[in-house]
Amino acid sequence: MKTRITDLFGIHVPIIQGGMVWVSGWKLASAVSNAGALGLIGAGSMKPDLLREHLRRCADATVRPFGVNIPLLRGDIQELIDVILEEKVRIIFTSAGHPGRHIARFKEAGCSVVHVIANVKQAVKAQESGCDAVVAEGFEAGGHNGLDEITTLALIPQVVDAVTVPVIAAGGIADGRGMLAAMALGAEAVQVGTRFAATVESSAHELYKQRIVEAKDGDTVLTYRNILPVRALRNPFMESVSKEETAQGMTRERMMELHAKGRERKGIFEGNWEEGEMEMGQSSGLVKDVIPAADVVVRMMSEYSSALKTLNSR
Amino acid sequence: MKTRITDLFGIHVPIIQGGMVWVSGWKLASAVSNAGALGLIGAGSMKPDLLREHLRRCADATVRPFGVNIPLLRGDIQELIDVILEEKVRIIFTSAGHPGRHIARFKEAGCSVVHVIANVKQAVKAQESGCDAVVAEGFEAGGHNGLDEITTLALIPQVVDAVTVPVIAAGGIADGRGMLAAMALGAEAVQVGTRFAATVESSAHELYKQRIVEAKDGDTVLTYRNILPVRALRNPFMESVSKEETAQGMTRERMMELHAKGRERKGIFEGNWEEGEMEMGQSSGLVKDVIPAADVVVRMMSEYSSALKTLNSR
Repeated sequence: MKTRITDLFGIHVPIIQGGMVWVSGWKLASAVSNAGALGLIGAGSMKPDLLREHLRRCADATVRPFGVNIPLLRGDIQELIDVILEEKVRIIFTSAGHPGRHIARFKEAGCSVVHVIANVKQAVKAQESGCDAVVAEGFEAGGHNGLDEITTLALIPQVVDAVTVPVIAAGGIADGRGMLAAMALGAEAVQVGTRFAATVESSAHELYKQRIVEAKDGDTVLTYRNILPVRALRNPFMESVSKEETAQGMTRERMMELHAKGRERKGIFEGNWEEGEMEMGQSSGLVKDVIPAADVVVRMMSEYSSALKTLNSR
Repeated sequence: MKTRITDLFGIHVPIIQGGMVWVSGWKLASAVSNAGALGLIGAGSMKPDLLREHLRRCADATVRPFGVNIPLLRGDIQELIDVILEEKVRIIFTSAGHPGRHIARFKEAGCSVVHVIANVKQAVKAQESGCDAVVAEGFEAGGHNGLDEITTLALIPQVVDAVTVPVIAAGGIADGRGMLAAMALGAEAVQVGTRFAATVESSAHELYKQRIVEAKDGDTVLTYRNILPVRALRNPFMESVSKEETAQGMTRERMMELHAKGRERKGIFEGNWEEGEMEMGQSSGLVKDVIPAADVVVRMMSEYSSALKTLNSR
């Protein structure tokens, strides 16, 4: 399969494993890249030195292209970028911030830069900043989420119509049907998070992986809606946050109080059901097993072909 | 094009025009049915006598099948059903309530019954009640909306996996790309609201139609989130409701106070920008013109074919 995204990255199939805190280290990213898709190391939960280690191990574990996702709001962002460029990573996904002031440095080093956006305006701005592509991520996605609450189905065609760079669809995609749907909307690749979080190579806690497998369609909830929205499983902690928010609103100060304290680490990495944030998307309802990452890629491509065959037979 | 839904209703293309209050009277429904799709009269804003008049006029205006959408929570639901059966309408879409206790009467009269659902549990229940199909409607849809906030992309495949009856996808679909995406997910037809609300035959106010055309991707907002969610354009009224809800929460009593007072009529039928509720979905950002309903059908089918061709060329 060929699209502008497979060309841009030199990959065999238009599937990108989303960079996920506490989930996507070198093991997952290299497994995905070895399967012909694009693995991303999630730098969000790594200090510069640990990131360097993951980048080196990933480079040792695959000869295929891989990339890194960096949240631009990090205080030590310059250090992270130094590490990434020193380690000669050439595929950079940026999120949570504005890529503009870093682009020149990335481009000088010969990197492809892709920014994660959640509305049309951000997509246009990313293109104007010089990004090579955008990830358009919908409301159903796990983890941090846009303020406008635009769903993947509504967002992708509007972004495709507004920019000329290729669009990668994210949010709600966990199988080949979702991938085919995203491509039908005009996306040239998909970014998949939750499905890859429940793989053998994911560095998340086993209990978190099991919770993804057990999750039903309505089991995630969006909290901190008007501040910095986060989608996660309805566990005791998120349920209490959601109830408080619904009853009396949420301030930035109160959110800092609740969301800080390593909630993501607790939920995802330590498997703390009571007190952690177990970030996952609405597509968790489609995930029924923990399997090797390469099997996710193979299965998605096979489901894609069979769904396309069904469309053609109508 | 043939699916179990085109067979069920005897229509040529798997497109259903959603029943919409103050929008879909006999003019719109008959225009859509004459174009080979399925038109639905929206009984939600009609008293029994007016509904009878619309059903008769619709039958005069088309020899093709058409249907009616009834919100089951109406106090005068028995009268509405009497009118529908007396006028020999044979396609019934039910929403906002449980179809169970009416099914026997509909089935006795030889009707097809389709229930609108917003999560997997409701879909299974509708099937068990004897419904012939379900409309699975996602978070991006305009007007009344499910409490679970599941998006169309995440909802459709999960519903398709859970029931054996055919699934109609609704929410976020305004062009042939969205239709193809929904069919890729396993839907056997799409229900389209907002795009048909901005047609020549729609009985809505011209100003409301223009507001759909002007709307951008993030211009709708969901309010009354934990009570009876409604998606509408961010106009002064909805903006004030949303701000109040965000700051201090919302009670059922306060919602009755705000949402009552004919807000839907004011917004949609009277074109009252300041004080009405202009219900529309996130797909409003894809609607760029007010055209005849038949042109919507033709255009969607042509976009569908061309998007499918692109998929096959990858």
